[in-house]
Amino acid sequence: MSLLERAEKSLAYHFDALVTPQTPPRLAAAMRHAVFSSGARVRPQLCTAVALACRDDAPGLSDAMGSAIELMHCASLVHDDMPAFDNADTRRGQPTVHKAFGEPLALLTGDALIVLAYQVLAHAGAQQPQRLGALIRNLSAGVGVPSGIVAGQAWECEVRADLSEYQRAKTGALFVAATCGGALAAGADPQPWTPLGACLGEAYQVADDIRDVMGHAQALGKPVGQDALHGRPSVAQSLGLAGAVVYFQNLMDQAVDSIPECGARELLSQVVRRESERLVPTSMCEAVGKPYPHLQSVAAPVAAPGAGNAVA
Amino acid sequence: MSLLERAEKSLAYHFDALVTPQTPPRLAAAMRHAVFSSGARVRPQLCTAVALACRDDAPGLSDAMGSAIELMHCASLVHDDMPAFDNADTRRGQPTVHKAFGEPLALLTGDALIVLAYQVLAHAGAQQPQRLGALIRNLSAGVGVPSGIVAGQAWECEVRADLSEYQRAKTGALFVAATCGGALAAGADPQPWTPLGACLGEAYQVADDIRDVMGHAQALGKPVGQDALHGRPSVAQSLGLAGAVVYFQNLMDQAVDSIPECGARELLSQVVRRESERLVPTSMCEAVGKPYPHLQSVAAPVAAPGAGNAVA
Repeated sequence: MSLLERAEKSLAYHFDALVTPQTPPRLAAAMRHAVFSSGARVRPQLCTAVALACRDDAPGLSDAMGSAIELMHCASLVHDDMPAFDNADTRRGQPTVHKAFGEPLALLTGDALIVLAYQVLAHAGAQQPQRLGALIRNLSAGVGVPSGIVAGQAWECEVRADLSEYQRAKTGALFVAATCGGALAAGADPQPWTPLGACLGEAYQVADDIRDVMGHAQALGKPVGQDALHGRPSVAQSLGLAGAVVYFQNLMDQAVDSIPECGARELLSQVVRRESERLVPTSMCEAVGKPYPHLQSVAAPVAAPGAGNAVA
Repeated sequence: MSLLERAEKSLAYHFDALVTPQTPPRLAAAMRHAVFSSGARVRPQLCTAVALACRDDAPGLSDAMGSAIELMHCASLVHDDMPAFDNADTRRGQPTVHKAFGEPLALLTGDALIVLAYQVLAHAGAQQPQRLGALIRNLSAGVGVPSGIVAGQAWECEVRADLSEYQRAKTGALFVAATCGGALAAGADPQPWTPLGACLGEAYQVADDIRDVMGHAQALGKPVGQDALHGRPSVAQSLGLAGAVVYFQNLMDQAVDSIPECGARELLSQVVRRESERLVPTSMCEAVGKPYPHLQSVAAPVAAPGAGNAVA
């Protein structure tokens, strides 16, 4: 089973177990729309890959951690798309939740998905109660105050905000929670996995800035030019496009270099390289005169060895 | 120390420990505004009183459970007041969060408070890891899908909704989480405490309906007539005012009757009676020709025996 298949299977399993038929039907439909509209699932794949690097002795728990992270990501997208923020009509090529279901249900959908993330962890954590506290703290650090993605979004509401702190919180915190969460779910020390999450998170934000300038709305599945429109800090604007692309490539190289020596180093490198190509394709690098020679062919899905009992 | 003092002390302790100076300043200010604007703290008082009835062998944990419940309540008020729902300008006699800080920060404040509730539990639960899973599940059941307060709010977005199911979820679920949470924090069986939370939760919703019709905006600290304005189901409208008051009184009697035999029965009865007077004052009962003879003088604050080490 590939990492992606494992992530999808876990999300579907937990969603169906917890969003029962007693749920108000339109809320359940809006939550499903938010979670199952073709996300890349990079955070849960990263979480699982790190868990595998740490022996993954509790695959049900590492899958739950990955699902919880992805649910938080989906919740943040639903709220960020609302008129109070981006006022976006489309996301992943689909109508945003507030466009499809109205603002009240979009607000509630985000809230319910945040709670659902914890429900997933508590559900899976019943088998490993001694690990649950650290997983809850790790997930919360990626989302809440002082430095999670909600805090990152809140820096946009401040008169003065430090660009790197803003970006670290806005996107990086949830990537760090993904890598550290994979280690914690496997009962390992999370600390060596922090740089991988931090580099990927920052790279992801830089890529978003680049694509916001260069991208096509249709290919992205969401509107472009939003950063300039909303006056948000942007690396693509401060470094220029070519500078931003080089900055992105350096971050991706740092991400690969940061991976600790372990049996899953090759698997993790593949995840990073494939994500790099997905985020800032070769054609974009070449278009600004900055080809990225490190990238090899990484189109094949990444197989996750020994993950057959993923959602046991 | 009274139950109220214990609830306030715990909230302040956890808020200061977790909303650190690294938090974006306006987000921190909005969260503080949402949490420390003179709430009655009935849910955490109820939680602590039940914990005391169950010997309260881990007062730091029962205080944390009460604080977590109250943070969820505050989060729900922030989001419910927003233009997508009630569009209320005032709450507890103060400007609502979106009026004072703007819609984006109000949305983020609610999100951050939901996460903060779990952070509080994980923080306190480090001392009692074997109880943490049940506390997380209990808190989540009160808030999320299928039957928590978020689901209750979502029933307003359905074409068809059952009135009692709607009310049970909209308010009752968090009261049940408070009573059951008090038992769970003390390592006791939560089941005998479900009816107390359910009766109080329904009574609270009925009182809200009554006050929405009879109340004065100034005394309530929020606008009146909102149910009719928003076309929401209301017991005061379906039973008439006098009928709704009698229904409320019966629920309060049921609440007292449901309290299991225990050393804190008198303390809990006092909490219920005092809450009854606060919600639907004697003068209101008499105004609709339904005096409530069961009520004794309950003005004195309720002392919580042996709670000196509340936030140890």
